[in-house]
Amino acid sequence: MEKRIYNFSAGPAVLPLEVLETAQRDLVALPGTGMSVLEMSHRSKGFEQIIEETEANLRQLLQIPANYQVLFLQGGATLQFSMLPLNFLRGTNRPSDYIVTGTWGIKAAKEAQREGEVCLVWDGKSTNYRRVPHQNELKLNSEATYVHFTSNETIEGVEFSETPNTGNVPLVCDMSSDFLARPLPMERYGLIYAGAQKNAGPAGVTVVIIRDDLLARVPDNLHTMLDYRIQAKNKSLYNTPPTFSIYIVMLVTRWLKQTIGGLSNIAALNQQKAQLLYEAIDQSDGFYRGHAQPDSRSMMNVTWRLPTPELEQQFVKEAQGRDLYELKGHRSVGGIRASIYNAMPLAGILALRDFMLEFQASHAEMK
Amino acid sequence: MEKRIYNFSAGPAVLPLEVLETAQRDLVALPGTGMSVLEMSHRSKGFEQIIEETEANLRQLLQIPANYQVLFLQGGATLQFSMLPLNFLRGTNRPSDYIVTGTWGIKAAKEAQREGEVCLVWDGKSTNYRRVPHQNELKLNSEATYVHFTSNETIEGVEFSETPNTGNVPLVCDMSSDFLARPLPMERYGLIYAGAQKNAGPAGVTVVIIRDDLLARVPDNLHTMLDYRIQAKNKSLYNTPPTFSIYIVMLVTRWLKQTIGGLSNIAALNQQKAQLLYEAIDQSDGFYRGHAQPDSRSMMNVTWRLPTPELEQQFVKEAQGRDLYELKGHRSVGGIRASIYNAMPLAGILALRDFMLEFQASHAEMK
Repeated sequence: MEKRIYNFSAGPAVLPLEVLETAQRDLVALPGTGMSVLEMSHRSKGFEQIIEETEANLRQLLQIPANYQVLFLQGGATLQFSMLPLNFLRGTNRPSDYIVTGTWGIKAAKEAQREGEVCLVWDGKSTNYRRVPHQNELKLNSEATYVHFTSNETIEGVEFSETPNTGNVPLVCDMSSDFLARPLPMERYGLIYAGAQKNAGPAGVTVVIIRDDLLARVPDNLHTMLDYRIQAKNKSLYNTPPTFSIYIVMLVTRWLKQTIGGLSNIAALNQQKAQLLYEAIDQSDGFYRGHAQPDSRSMMNVTWRLPTPELEQQFVKEAQGRDLYELKGHRSVGGIRASIYNAMPLAGILALRDFMLEFQASHAEMK
Repeated sequence: MEKRIYNFSAGPAVLPLEVLETAQRDLVALPGTGMSVLEMSHRSKGFEQIIEETEANLRQLLQIPANYQVLFLQGGATLQFSMLPLNFLRGTNRPSDYIVTGTWGIKAAKEAQREGEVCLVWDGKSTNYRRVPHQNELKLNSEATYVHFTSNETIEGVEFSETPNTGNVPLVCDMSSDFLARPLPMERYGLIYAGAQKNAGPAGVTVVIIRDDLLARVPDNLHTMLDYRIQAKNKSLYNTPPTFSIYIVMLVTRWLKQTIGGLSNIAALNQQKAQLLYEAIDQSDGFYRGHAQPDSRSMMNVTWRLPTPELEQQFVKEAQGRDLYELKGHRSVGGIRASIYNAMPLAGILALRDFMLEFQASHAEMK
């Protein structure tokens, strides 16, 4: 068997080994169907079972109430940046509120500006996106059509630990990078969207969870593929959905249920994993400097700097000698980024932590 | 190993067995990368090689000139129905010409009507979509912004054998269901789009081939994901593309090049396969009645009726006893549909042909 390395990519990202092994075993012919999932009609009984189990797993894991629809769309979170204002801002004569805590929030707000008024009700720019706001810093518009936030910013490595309170205004969340990482107070959200390729599956499918009262607001004149109501009415089968990507989400959610035992368990594991790396940073006597403020630290993307860019390059390169890959930070923040989603095993974290300690010991004099 | 059946699904559809076996072998770890393609960052060297080979294979197979861009998008042909008029019709004060030969052409025209004037320059409705037009029946607008047609209609089973001549007006083709089935006069097209899930790969990726002069016409104010120019400028990597689906397209195009030997060879094979079924229809003494007129018959989707709906149901059911699946026609046409894309092996066609002959022999008295 081919060797596998530890993959700290920000997404597409590591998947659970047992998911990959199941997908491999059944790739040429899914038992009972005589064909690969890659070849299966989206109107077939075989695929019906797949999409139904995927939805049921998500509903169980996230405790999704019956008045929410679960959709499987295409185009990534980026297309959601546009679908949101097309469905809920255009023509309303009401503002939309955007809480901006990093790169993805900025992009979401930019697309919304094409369709109406966008209020940046909090923007972390002045702090270089090192933290998320406290509830009492949010000056929300009571007449806003929705409030949008990004629960975890992958590039900066900042994450909300609490769900913002938006009163009666529907709360919309780009949860691409911490979806399924912890239990959620689902009833406080109007709409959640998540590109699957971080915590939920491969690239090519975006999960959208939307409350029925928001569906009722969708105007009548949207292009079919951009209309949440049509997608919901057709249960994501208006046209051919990304069938194989949905199948992998089914396997990942099955793993979360059966092997991990649910979102409380994965949250505890994620906490433990992140803690190990943040401790290595905090106990490095300043050799490693975390980007995010401690109270805003991400459990998914740990970002930090070394004393010099040269040392950062050397760190990334030497790490590969330990089978630790994809640790280079995003160019806009620099430094190191370790993405440690649900599927990153504890062994990978321990290997990275040990390497951090050794690298520091060898280079601390250069601080 | 699990048994495989013959899958005549209209799409997602059968894939070459050697493609599935390669994907299976490398699913847990692609050699040289230490990870699954499902886990691979779209910015990594590993994926760069995949998308570059996919494009190079397509360029070689289709002889795509350098002044065309090859894009890998999401949302299927249905999102292209909208992107086309958003990019090239909206705000032009010019009409668009649509040649409508079946269900998909109707849908394409409907989305275009949201953005401007749509002229149905030929509509097969009066013939129940049994044929495609001759060149001399097309009354094209010389000032049209583009002419759109659907080269193969999967539901009705009608296909253009010649590329329409549109003079200086850019020709746009929905080639979803006969893409890569035969060589093309590429320089006569302005834009070709194809959902991959029939002839080119799995669901979840749409290939768009677009000429540079059309890219130059794209207006400035489109939503990012719906803007061909931004997608082209970023070489399909503005956001995370459907990486695994693109990888399967790479394997399929590699199979077409290396195992089949190019599009002339696959076209000859497709001709031979279709001929076997159409002969069984034509020589059935009226027991089987083809839907399409002989000069408009599809090489990809063979559609026919039996004497009664009850016999059609029995045909579909008994066929499964011979491992022949997904033969039920679309509800809008009824009867039987055998989709026989590139990857359907000759053995599957022969098995179906033999079953047709036997079924006819058992039931001819009921004609």
